Amino acid sequence: MSFRKERNFIVFRFEDGKDVIESLKRVAKEHQIQSGVILSGIGMLRDFEISFYSREKMGYVTNKFHEPVELLSFSGNISMRNNEPFFHLHVALAKEDISAIGGHLKKATVHNTLEGVIMRLSEMKLTRDPETGTLSIS
Amino acid sequence: MSFRKERNFIVFRFEDGKDVIESLKRVAKEHQIQSGVILSGIGMLRDFEISFYSREKMGYVTNKFHEPVELLSFSGNISMRNNEPFFHLHVALAKEDISAIGGHLKKATVHNTLEGVIMRLSEMKLTRDPETGTLSIS
Amino acid sequence: MSFRKERNFIVFRFEDGKDVIESLKRVAKEHQIQSGVILSGIGMLRDFEISFYSREKMGYVTNKFHEPVELLSFSGNISMRNNEPFFHLHVALAKEDISAIGGHLKKATVHNTLEGVIMRLSEMKLTRDPETGTLSIS
Repeated sequence: MSFRKERNFIVFRFEDGKDVIESLKRVAKEHQIQSGVILSGIGMLRDFEISFYSREKMGYVTNKFHEPVELLSFSGNISMRNNEPFFHLHVALAKEDISAIGGHLKKATVHNTLEGVIMRLSEMKLTRDPETGTLSIS
Repeated sequence: MSFRKERNFIVFRFEDGKDVIESLKRVAKEHQIQSGVILSGIGMLRDFEISFYSREKMGYVTNKFHEPVELLSFSGNISMRNNEPFFHLHVALAKEDISAIGGHLKKATVHNTLEGVIMRLSEMKLTRDPETGTLSIS
Repeated sequence: MSFRKERNFIVFRFEDGKDVIESLKRVAKEHQIQSGVILSGIGMLRDFEISFYSREKMGYVTNKFHEPVELLSFSGNISMRNNEPFFHLHVALAKEDISAIGGHLKKATVHNTLEGVIMRLSEMKLTRDPETGTLSIS
């Protein structure tokens, strides 16, 4: 795992086998990021879970995959929830047949590499309500 | 609807039921954004229209949907066209079966939430020709 | 082809028929970008090649297309490899039937237009190992 900061931008690289969300949390802690935005992320993922939020089912419907996929886009933000940095992440992915899938990212392992960028927000505070999930900007 | 500016970055959150493009225009007007870039956007959409530009058909072929979809990526820019801020937007979306679709976004309603970021450009001017659609950078 | 810099952000527009990677290299050379990030890119592509990296096949499996597609998201980074700016690029694309595909972008021609943004990194150095492909951040 390697990462470096320039102004408010942190560029990171996670190696094969790393847990994506745990690795992001470590970057957040090392750079004291309480609020931020994921600006970029490419590479590959495996052993991942993506969800679709269904009102009818009153919650996330989650799909689990083991096989590697290309990470086409990696978007989201970092807010504080229960005094811990929380990552709200969405991904677009391509399977080996190049068809694209995607959703809310619950969990993933890096396959080969993940190269990305976080923008740290230092003047505003993003907070997520632990009960409702609502994001507040203050 | 809430939004806040830090340096040239505006973080916004639109609530369920809001018109996406009208809400973006309101943010642009409140922060006097004449030129800018959409850096991020996640959440869900419903009642949306996405288009494919076809030369053979000499225009956009538009597909309308009502059902909710996850917003995987939200990209685009803000330019002035006929003295109004104009949003050129492309989206990648996931349906309930997690398959991805996408195109040029013509219209959409926020489902649950839309959380995003705009970068304001203050030293350059993006202008879109109302007849040809061509973007000029000056 | 037109492009302009504001702080560390370069906004560009490439016209129909341009080679995407050659055009990005030209922007990188004109603005002396040795390290950077692609923050945005929308428009259309044609005559493109997208790949999936397969460990079993010990390399990229590449799919070639001629037909135009909408460019939904354009992500990646710029590093120095053998003293030349190297672009690691991933794309999500939509076909005329709005289904999405994607992968590692090897080659593409602009269809109609490509409008995008690069962030130049000036305090850190991204380097890619020409043998292993590994990105170093220093």
